[in-house]
Amino acid sequence: MSEGKDSAAMQRALVQFDCHGTASGKMRNDLRVHMRKPFNEGPFELATDEGSFHGGDGTAPPPLALFVAGLTGCIMTQIRAFAKRMGVTLTNLTVDARVQWDWEAKGRIYETGPRSFEVDVAIESDDPEIKVAALINAARKGCFIEQTLGRQNTIRHRMKTPTGWKEL
Amino acid sequence: MSEGKDSAAMQRALVQFDCHGTASGKMRNDLRVHMRKPFNEGPFELATDEGSFHGGDGTAPPPLALFVAGLTGCIMTQIRAFAKRMGVTLTNLTVDARVQWDWEAKGRIYETGPRSFEVDVAIESDDPEIKVAALINAARKGCFIEQTLGRQNTIRHRMKTPTGWKEL
Repeated sequence: MSEGKDSAAMQRALVQFDCHGTASGKMRNDLRVHMRKPFNEGPFELATDEGSFHGGDGTAPPPLALFVAGLTGCIMTQIRAFAKRMGVTLTNLTVDARVQWDWEAKGRIYETGPRSFEVDVAIESDDPEIKVAALINAARKGCFIEQTLGRQNTIRHRMKTPTGWKEL
Repeated sequence: MSEGKDSAAMQRALVQFDCHGTASGKMRNDLRVHMRKPFNEGPFELATDEGSFHGGDGTAPPPLALFVAGLTGCIMTQIRAFAKRMGVTLTNLTVDARVQWDWEAKGRIYETGPRSFEVDVAIESDDPEIKVAALINAARKGCFIEQTLGRQNTIRHRMKTPTGWKEL
């Protein structure tokens, strides 16, 4: 099935995004994102802030707004891309996502944890329900963020010290 | 330790973000996000798009850029908020995050999975390294997105049908 080196090379790929964040304002963070693999794209300039209740100036959305928008946009993009590839007509698409977390005070700080993720997909299509359901299920497997949330991921942290980076 | 009903009520809380996504442009998605609990905030207007290689118009960042920016902004926000509460001086903060995914073609569509998450934290502080490390480790537990990625989450999907919402 190979059509040559380029096609064969794209049977598998590593996708990498980097983000450089700088603290600005009271709680604002400026976030410069690049796609590094398999191509170079960006920079994409984003920012987060907090409202006045949390000591910020409200100049940008809070981090969780970017997260929930990223999840919603990712599943929508996958549905739209796969509709063409799977031959499913798609005359309109809206998605409503709801994400809940638990928040608990621990002394002067707090801890958090995820509670629920719900994604409602409304597709207008001339195709039968079974074909539309198959499209959504394929999109779930192609959605980078949904696949990430479905696994227990390890996040490595390092801190900068005078003698170099130190694993936490 | 309770200072009354309001303070007691904030020992635990449910945090909820909703996102309403509409398909616009070739691959662009407009994403309207609201915080619903414990307060109402928003709407926060965000968008995703794809570059021309993926059939989009490049009018907004790709979904993964929002995701990686959300993760980076979340840990930075937690570090800044907790520095005050934990009495750690913080004269400057930058964070560099790198996230990798595997991508694999499956016939005409593809599947994806997370590979690695790396977060490098550079804090300028007059305080000893051990105090700064404790701050970062506390921030990890307070970071909604990091805690979400560390668990195996179930994402419920429903599709709209003529007879109502159907679980997938």
